[in-house]
Amino acid sequence: MTERSPLAVPFPLLPPIAGARPAVARARYKEWDRCDLTFVALDEGTSVAGVLTNSKCASPEVEWCRKALTLGSARALVVNAGNSNAFTGNRGRAAVEALAARAAAHLGCQPSDVFVASTGVIGVPLPIDKAEAGLDGAFGAAECGWLDAAEAIGTTDTFPKGAVQRAVIGDRAVTLVGIIKGSGMIAPDMATMLGFIFTDAAVEPGFLQQLLNHANRRSFSCITVDGDTSTSDTVLAFATGKVGNAPLASFDDPGADAFAAALDALCLDLAHQVVRDGEGASKFIEVQVTRAITDGSAHRIAMSIANSPLVKTAIAGEDANWGRVVMAVGKAGEPAERDKLSIRFGNTIVASNGCAVEGYDEAPVAQHLKGQEIEIGVDLGLGAGRATVWTCDLTHGYISINADYRS
Amino acid sequence: MTERSPLAVPFPLLPPIAGARPAVARARYKEWDRCDLTFVALDEGTSVAGVLTNSKCASPEVEWCRKALTLGSARALVVNAGNSNAFTGNRGRAAVEALAARAAAHLGCQPSDVFVASTGVIGVPLPIDKAEAGLDGAFGAAECGWLDAAEAIGTTDTFPKGAVQRAVIGDRAVTLVGIIKGSGMIAPDMATMLGFIFTDAAVEPGFLQQLLNHANRRSFSCITVDGDTSTSDTVLAFATGKVGNAPLASFDDPGADAFAAALDALCLDLAHQVVRDGEGASKFIEVQVTRAITDGSAHRIAMSIANSPLVKTAIAGEDANWGRVVMAVGKAGEPAERDKLSIRFGNTIVASNGCAVEGYDEAPVAQHLKGQEIEIGVDLGLGAGRATVWTCDLTHGYISINADYRS
Repeated sequence: MTERSPLAVPFPLLPPIAGARPAVARARYKEWDRCDLTFVALDEGTSVAGVLTNSKCASPEVEWCRKALTLGSARALVVNAGNSNAFTGNRGRAAVEALAARAAAHLGCQPSDVFVASTGVIGVPLPIDKAEAGLDGAFGAAECGWLDAAEAIGTTDTFPKGAVQRAVIGDRAVTLVGIIKGSGMIAPDMATMLGFIFTDAAVEPGFLQQLLNHANRRSFSCITVDGDTSTSDTVLAFATGKVGNAPLASFDDPGADAFAAALDALCLDLAHQVVRDGEGASKFIEVQVTRAITDGSAHRIAMSIANSPLVKTAIAGEDANWGRVVMAVGKAGEPAERDKLSIRFGNTIVASNGCAVEGYDEAPVAQHLKGQEIEIGVDLGLGAGRATVWTCDLTHGYISINADYRS
Repeated sequence: MTERSPLAVPFPLLPPIAGARPAVARARYKEWDRCDLTFVALDEGTSVAGVLTNSKCASPEVEWCRKALTLGSARALVVNAGNSNAFTGNRGRAAVEALAARAAAHLGCQPSDVFVASTGVIGVPLPIDKAEAGLDGAFGAAECGWLDAAEAIGTTDTFPKGAVQRAVIGDRAVTLVGIIKGSGMIAPDMATMLGFIFTDAAVEPGFLQQLLNHANRRSFSCITVDGDTSTSDTVLAFATGKVGNAPLASFDDPGADAFAAALDALCLDLAHQVVRDGEGASKFIEVQVTRAITDGSAHRIAMSIANSPLVKTAIAGEDANWGRVVMAVGKAGEPAERDKLSIRFGNTIVASNGCAVEGYDEAPVAQHLKGQEIEIGVDLGLGAGRATVWTCDLTHGYISINADYRS
């Protein structure tokens, strides 16, 4: 077992969400004695939205969810940990269908109301006997808390990850909770990892999807651990409506702005926790790119920096090697002018106008780099485009986790 | 000092090239007792071609060479090791101009006939006093062999790298030799690292450029160590013409095909040696992608695999984790169909038609992965596009070299 990340944050107190009842069970997908199947029963009337990986080799679970999302309603979520079921051909597809059918039979709903997500090794079909036994066990089990669910969906995660936000819609206070797993193979492409959000608010599925897309663009799509996009990235948001607010259908509805802001904050919190549990991470790094020609260009430059092994190892070594940031800007394939560029570590500008600043004093930068929260700023001096992304450093821990064992 | 790469190959016997006289000197760009300035005097009539980094933050040396290449003739090459002079503003530009002027004064030629390349830390202006003293020393020194030059241009390289090829043009036997340096920050974008090729053949500069572009596309542009493109990548080819063949100006000329093939082979040999000296490398990995929709698409998929930290750490761990290859294909952003894909390690197909092969036996794959030369094959089953690229594994050695010291 890998040690708990030094960047770990405590699991917050997450309240129950009316209309959503999580339960966990032991499917024993691997040789371990822990819960690895999570089942969340959802009341009738629950709307759903989701963002899924753009991988060309997406898992059958992702394909299943993509299809089910077109209907906009949900009655259950099933999450398997320890086996991603990706790249398993017809057997993998059959396993997802069987699992959805069995959950539907338990609940008396359509299989298309059942959302399925799996995470773990690629290429091994999900053992349907274990999955069904686990599902039956979870269906018969008592409702659990979100912490149990957050632990049950994890794989190489070193700490359980969750977040909560509240908003007021009209005269009702609504609550949003989210749980997420992810540590390696993190470079979400429009979606990410496995993340699940539950709210008691009533939100029309189309509008919920619009809000989730927006939140995703500024959170899950702005993090990377290793630049490796998973075949199973899935974020689903379920709105049970149990709080009884007038359903949100557009930004014209009272409370929609507050709900959107809460969802944005929730997704950002969850995304940051994934970075904090990045494999081998010892530093949490925020990369801010400003004055690029467009936001998209700023994002691609920020990701080029955040994915550079040389930048990430320099931060691991607490080395103020800003030349590697220059390199990463230069290779991004985006408009940049060397002689207009300025670079900042923490609050200290280290280089500007194409060279190191006059009388550059490394002391405050060295001090900043000794901390666990690192900030790299790049000002391109070209336009109004900006982006912020988050990553972690690249350490011996990453190599140990991914090379020193046989999968 | 880092240990010699386990993948190192012996330095071949490189003959002198008539019309090219290398010499080395100690400019002492760093606290070391070794030659770090290389000066190659070239006879009048030498033609030149080059490929240079596409980095948006290219060094002043790269800009200098780009301009000088438009003239097509060369009288000298100066290479500094230990300081890349990149991102140093006006002072860096002035240093290159001064160095070229001084070499031109020694030789009685134009500064634009002098080619300059530097490698090492980014952001520190090249100390012009050291550079000029080193240049003067090299000018006064005796001619050295290519091995001395190959050692003098190296930085974190753990072994000197060179190659030789011969071809017959008409009734003349011509010789091509090349030396190269590079170990980290290797992901050439049309060009790469510092590589220098010398031939006694007579080749018109325009045709030499055409041949070098072709060779580059199948060699330097097909390797990666860490996906980080340098600000200083430079490959220059010098043809002194001293062998007295009728100058090659197009493929219609007798011997042009033989010369092109020799140049291709030379560049590929040099490029492979850079991968073999990849920082921390313990395995040399060839990635072959076939039946993609186009060659370009195949190349991008191959690079996605070759740059994936999870694939590279799996190879380091001798782990037949082909699911990570699936992941890297899926994230490449190129056309791919999961259910048409097949994957091979060495000569063993491990997965096809969207799942693991029936009765997959890991034993021959495990045996292949124990070796130092690893082959990964991906057949996309879509078209006629193909590409081969080369990389190395990602080990603790890479982290140690890049994170465990302060630059």
